[in-house]
Amino acid sequence: MSAPAETTVNGVAEVCAAAATAAPGFAALPLPERAGLLRDVAGALRQAEPEIVALADRETALGPERLVGELARTTHQLDRFADGILDGRFREVIVDRNGPGPDLRRMLVPLGPVAVFAASNFPLAFSVAGGDTASALAAGCPVVVKAHPGHPRLSELCAMLAAEVLPEGVLALTHGMEAGRALVTDPHIRAAAFTGSASGGRALADLAHARPDPIPFYGELGSLNPVVVTAAAVEARGPEIADGFVASYTLGSGQFCTKPGVVLISRGHGLDERLVEAVSRVAPRRLLSERIATAYRDGVATLAATPGVTPLVRPEPTSGDVAAPALFKVPARELAGPLLEECFGPVSVLAEYDSVADLTAAVERLPGSLTMTIHAEPSDIALVRTLLVAATARAGRIVHNGWPTGVTVSPAMQHGGPWPSTTDPLHTSVGFTAIRRFLRPVVFQDVPDEFLPAPLRDTDDRHPHTGDS
Amino acid sequence: MSAPAETTVNGVAEVCAAAATAAPGFAALPLPERAGLLRDVAGALRQAEPEIVALADRETALGPERLVGELARTTHQLDRFADGILDGRFREVIVDRNGPGPDLRRMLVPLGPVAVFAASNFPLAFSVAGGDTASALAAGCPVVVKAHPGHPRLSELCAMLAAEVLPEGVLALTHGMEAGRALVTDPHIRAAAFTGSASGGRALADLAHARPDPIPFYGELGSLNPVVVTAAAVEARGPEIADGFVASYTLGSGQFCTKPGVVLISRGHGLDERLVEAVSRVAPRRLLSERIATAYRDGVATLAATPGVTPLVRPEPTSGDVAAPALFKVPARELAGPLLEECFGPVSVLAEYDSVADLTAAVERLPGSLTMTIHAEPSDIALVRTLLVAATARAGRIVHNGWPTGVTVSPAMQHGGPWPSTTDPLHTSVGFTAIRRFLRPVVFQDVPDEFLPAPLRDTDDRHPHTGDS
Repeated sequence: MSAPAETTVNGVAEVCAAAATAAPGFAALPLPERAGLLRDVAGALRQAEPEIVALADRETALGPERLVGELARTTHQLDRFADGILDGRFREVIVDRNGPGPDLRRMLVPLGPVAVFAASNFPLAFSVAGGDTASALAAGCPVVVKAHPGHPRLSELCAMLAAEVLPEGVLALTHGMEAGRALVTDPHIRAAAFTGSASGGRALADLAHARPDPIPFYGELGSLNPVVVTAAAVEARGPEIADGFVASYTLGSGQFCTKPGVVLISRGHGLDERLVEAVSRVAPRRLLSERIATAYRDGVATLAATPGVTPLVRPEPTSGDVAAPALFKVPARELAGPLLEECFGPVSVLAEYDSVADLTAAVERLPGSLTMTIHAEPSDIALVRTLLVAATARAGRIVHNGWPTGVTVSPAMQHGGPWPSTTDPLHTSVGFTAIRRFLRPVVFQDVPDEFLPAPLRDTDDRHPHTGDS
Repeated sequence: MSAPAETTVNGVAEVCAAAATAAPGFAALPLPERAGLLRDVAGALRQAEPEIVALADRETALGPERLVGELARTTHQLDRFADGILDGRFREVIVDRNGPGPDLRRMLVPLGPVAVFAASNFPLAFSVAGGDTASALAAGCPVVVKAHPGHPRLSELCAMLAAEVLPEGVLALTHGMEAGRALVTDPHIRAAAFTGSASGGRALADLAHARPDPIPFYGELGSLNPVVVTAAAVEARGPEIADGFVASYTLGSGQFCTKPGVVLISRGHGLDERLVEAVSRVAPRRLLSERIATAYRDGVATLAATPGVTPLVRPEPTSGDVAAPALFKVPARELAGPLLEECFGPVSVLAEYDSVADLTAAVERLPGSLTMTIHAEPSDIALVRTLLVAATARAGRIVHNGWPTGVTVSPAMQHGGPWPSTTDPLHTSVGFTAIRRFLRPVVFQDVPDEFLPAPLRDTDDRHPHTGDS
């Protein structure tokens, strides 16, 4: 199987036009049918598990165990969106026929064709048939995916499996950077979702906003995911926290968007030895690509050269796509510059504070993140309250006495946060509410029952909030 | 009372910093207190009605009757947002503690300081204490308003009345274009809302999106608000439709964002005389400003010179801020260029179609609008269904056998639509759901009850969905 060719600009225009043609029919499908299609995609992926996992492992080196898990997560997401739409509540129907004014009936409708830019680090769950695609399809929007170059053949396989069970034009795949730019500026595309680097996401967001007709752009970029450990927590559970931290930042070789990139910890924690020992048990491993491993080595060198930084664990020298874990230490008051940016891969920074004032001053400098984590004890009540206010202003998910890696697929999940972690903090890319990104409200004023969409009708044998369309 | 001075860039930075300082305390107010503040603003405005109406009339020439009505609408909006937040449902709490995963509790929190760019055409309802400000305050966000230069003294008065009853830093006013640019790029501002021209809105949206940290920009720009009249509707109610149309497009001298700018009507409707007569009863009137009247005269001249256009009513010659109504006619198939753009003021265009095919082809060329209106009879069922699909794709509000002017303040209202009518079709600037623009989700993972915000607690004597914060 040879590498797929880059999609031409004309090729992008064609699949976008086909998506626009398919959009009204797809939007009009009764919800049980739409849900059935999502389940069919999940089923097709499940049935091809051996092929998918083998191909994914060849292209990403993530290992069969992780990939089997990620495929299960991917099909789980599709199934949960299928479940989630059935009662029609996602349409947020509001009926006002009792006021002195007109009869008003509002519901959310699909935006139209959506561009999905796949991620490198989740070749299944945030790629062709991942959460962005699942939520757009659940909303009733056709999808045109821009494949990540890290797993082009896997993308082709997943797109083929999905397109086979979906109506014509509802899912298409494109390849190449030029195709990506054409996609986000195509006049048929009504919104775009992206998971990837800050620079790539920003460039595409700028294109989306500079269109003659700007479109919403939902980018999940980089995230620092700071962790705060109180002195009481160190005293109560120091070694456990040290082990948990190392396990979290090296999980998946640090290639998660929720990797803890900095840990604010009280000076005199006495955990250096334990940390070094825990890191020493993590062997060098292949990253997703040589490009990512090179960027990692450069990032580690930049951190090492930042004023105030001392190494706790210098990474073993590696080459190609292999990377070894690293750990640095810095006084909290010197947290600045590259120490406040994501460095993708198995590296993190201990930032040691001398006092609560020192800690809270450092927290005030933290950038927006997907997550912020607090390790504390019941005796820390006043400090925790202060930290929670700061965390609420800076993160989309606040984790208590745990670790940020591992994003549960739940209706309550928020995977998104203030800039620079995403381009639009109002939304999430994980969990059922991710569907909201691809819907817009329309109100019908004094429209007779026979002309109303089914979910808004009085005289329907379906409950207004549970009707199909 | 002299005209307020333009706010300096330093002045803008100061009020934005004060808003940021006020933000956490304002966000943390118990909901009954927050609601009480909204009611206090409404009360202060009501008490000053004579002064407000006199000053507004001097600055806008809209007339006391309209202004008394608009003030009532403004205070009604504030009161409805106060009512709306009390049950806490706007926080969209989702609790997931039953899964095998962590305990997850999600709610919406305020974004932080919001910039509001006031409109010229609603000096009260879409200005200093208008819907954007009311919804931002209801969300728990301090507001910095950029006054419209059309009513600077009225803006000062309303800001003073509101600021007197609000906590320090929660409402501030700025003046001048340079101040507006400084405001939308100020690092403390977390979102901006705008009502005004397409060019001004686009320029500010571009600034918001080009920031080092892009922010959401909710702009309501121009809208064509097309109307379709079927042949059967002409036959059944032609004269009534003609009168209703003229009343709607000349209401408030055509200075409403929902003014019907084009009416697609079946050729041979025989209503020319009736229309001309109805328009002849509308006297020339003062527009909001001489600038707007000049732009109106230029716009009318452009329409008159567009290929295919013939005048039904040429406007009487006027000067200064006075404008006379105009009405044009064009074959539907020649609808293009300026005929598909908003022309602010008392002018509209009859676009005559020869067949259903001619009509539907013209509808496909219509731009995104705040509203689309359909006049039809029960016998038009197939045609109406087709038109509704097209209207749903193009408008935020679909009006049946009525007129788009007059936007009811209702929880079901949608005042927003696809580009170019707004910069973000997911939102509304009228109705309770306008609050959603200024909130973002945060999820608390495994956070003990004593640390959780009240709305998310188990052990609270308040119901989780009705708690104060």
